[in-house]
Amino acid sequence: MVPHEGMNPENRLAIAIDVGGTSIKGALVNEKGEIVQRRGVSTQAVEGFQRVSERIGALTKELREDTAAFGLPEPVGVGIGVPGSVEPDVPDVVTYAPNLKWWNAPLGQRVREFVQLPVVMENDANVAAIGEKWMGAGQGIESLAVVTIGTGIGCGLILDGRLYRGPKGAAGEIGHTILLPDGPLCNCGKRGCLEALTAAPAVVRMAREQISKTSQGILRALFPDRIEAHHVFEAGREGDSMALEIVHRVAYYLGWGLANLINTLNPQCIVLGGGVAQAGEILFAPVREKIYNMALTVPAQNCAIVPAQLGNDAGVVGAAALFFSKPEYHR
Amino acid sequence: MVPHEGMNPENRLAIAIDVGGTSIKGALVNEKGEIVQRRGVSTQAVEGFQRVSERIGALTKELREDTAAFGLPEPVGVGIGVPGSVEPDVPDVVTYAPNLKWWNAPLGQRVREFVQLPVVMENDANVAAIGEKWMGAGQGIESLAVVTIGTGIGCGLILDGRLYRGPKGAAGEIGHTILLPDGPLCNCGKRGCLEALTAAPAVVRMAREQISKTSQGILRALFPDRIEAHHVFEAGREGDSMALEIVHRVAYYLGWGLANLINTLNPQCIVLGGGVAQAGEILFAPVREKIYNMALTVPAQNCAIVPAQLGNDAGVVGAAALFFSKPEYHR
Repeated sequence: MVPHEGMNPENRLAIAIDVGGTSIKGALVNEKGEIVQRRGVSTQAVEGFQRVSERIGALTKELREDTAAFGLPEPVGVGIGVPGSVEPDVPDVVTYAPNLKWWNAPLGQRVREFVQLPVVMENDANVAAIGEKWMGAGQGIESLAVVTIGTGIGCGLILDGRLYRGPKGAAGEIGHTILLPDGPLCNCGKRGCLEALTAAPAVVRMAREQISKTSQGILRALFPDRIEAHHVFEAGREGDSMALEIVHRVAYYLGWGLANLINTLNPQCIVLGGGVAQAGEILFAPVREKIYNMALTVPAQNCAIVPAQLGNDAGVVGAAALFFSKPEYHR
Repeated sequence: MVPHEGMNPENRLAIAIDVGGTSIKGALVNEKGEIVQRRGVSTQAVEGFQRVSERIGALTKELREDTAAFGLPEPVGVGIGVPGSVEPDVPDVVTYAPNLKWWNAPLGQRVREFVQLPVVMENDANVAAIGEKWMGAGQGIESLAVVTIGTGIGCGLILDGRLYRGPKGAAGEIGHTILLPDGPLCNCGKRGCLEALTAAPAVVRMAREQISKTSQGILRALFPDRIEAHHVFEAGREGDSMALEIVHRVAYYLGWGLANLINTLNPQCIVLGGGVAQAGEILFAPVREKIYNMALTVPAQNCAIVPAQLGNDAGVVGAAALFFSKPEYHR
């Protein structure tokens, strides 16, 4: 447990917590966005809010004790990213976190029982957006969308330099914009949402459907249970025609959904992150082409489609940005 | 030429100009949103920017002279709504107004040659949004979309109390979000845009298609050239089954497009204006139903779908709001 060499006792620190469905990542992050200490714990969401929030509180307390042990400055506060909605009017409560099965969970208050510091919570898609604007692909950009495509789709919106949450904290749900009303069933209960057509489970579903019709191709050996989305993109890069067909279908739907976002908001930049976006240019190139075909010329030509830069640290860097990226971040 | 009785010399006045494809409306509007004088002139867009801008300048000058003639206060400035894009970085120039065939038209400067007053220009959809927030259906609401459905679809966005234009002034082009990539051709050159499925020409096209297949129904007598969108809604209200089918198709597409907008922005309110929206509850009721079916529950249940209140005066009242509605309006 040796702090990162980037540590500088003159820099202010925030405790940053990234609550995920599988693991909870904690870090001490300084105002340059450098991670000077990391700690983590397994979520074990099945144990319920009381136990999970206790783990989050204990992790927070340990990180605070690290600052004392290493002679680091007192943290300015605790930033927490959560996989759920936080309403601007009730910022201490996670209104709804489906993956954790939390409803009206008072996480902010709970964490303050462990450390007497300011606590700020924010939806994880918004945290990623603030982080990318602060220290990643969105630096210096005033209007951007950060779209994270993994098991689901998250989207944080920064418009005219300010995080836009929506009155109920529900803005940015572009994963549930509908493209095909008779399309595949989505986790939300509706059909043909962007998420149901482009997130990782959709890529896997398309691959399984294709493989079940043929005996050829690189992915056949993984059929049916070991196929993951990244296998499809890797097979595509190796020239596998079935995989390429799937990549182009995903790119078509993603380009269509992002074209609609571009026509609606005219962002200067869309930052794509998450597991599916790690596919890289094999996905990005056809996505850009579809966007130019489907969005109006002026907003399409003035919107860069770029990969996220913060990677696995997006959650903790963004959570620290809740304290350090002001005035871009306004509660 | 007698000023409106609401005139009160203690109220500040703005000169408000609403530039349309057919006519140019001018007014003196006080800071209560009352119209104290009106003047108008035909656009005659075919004569080109020089002549049209001269007419706008002359109209502006006449309105200023009216204030002197009636002992009214000196206007604070000239607000102009234009059917085109105005980029935030070049606020004096209409970048592109397709209906007027203007490209990079320096209208702001031109008007200042006629009256030495501050001139503020804004896209007409944004003007309608500012007007409805100031004195119409959006009063007291912080995040709303004002969608005007007529020959085309315009949309002005006010988010967290501020007009959101987009970096190139191109935000709010929800009329060109695509629902059916193989659908009917749109004026923008793409297929299946919301505008091509729900604006007045789409309603007329659907009616013609239906009538050409049948000899029955109220609309038959108007076939083919005299059908207008309002006839379809009127026939629907009288129970004409063919008209009702068209109304429900329009409501389906409009509900779908607005559901995607609601999932993206979580607005508290969508204000519907323009000729198609004047259909009233026969359209609004099924649109609300489609929205509840297609948008996520939280943003759908927290978004009111209401008619615009300013009607034909939206353009001039909104143009005055460019001066009087601050701090909601920020250039």
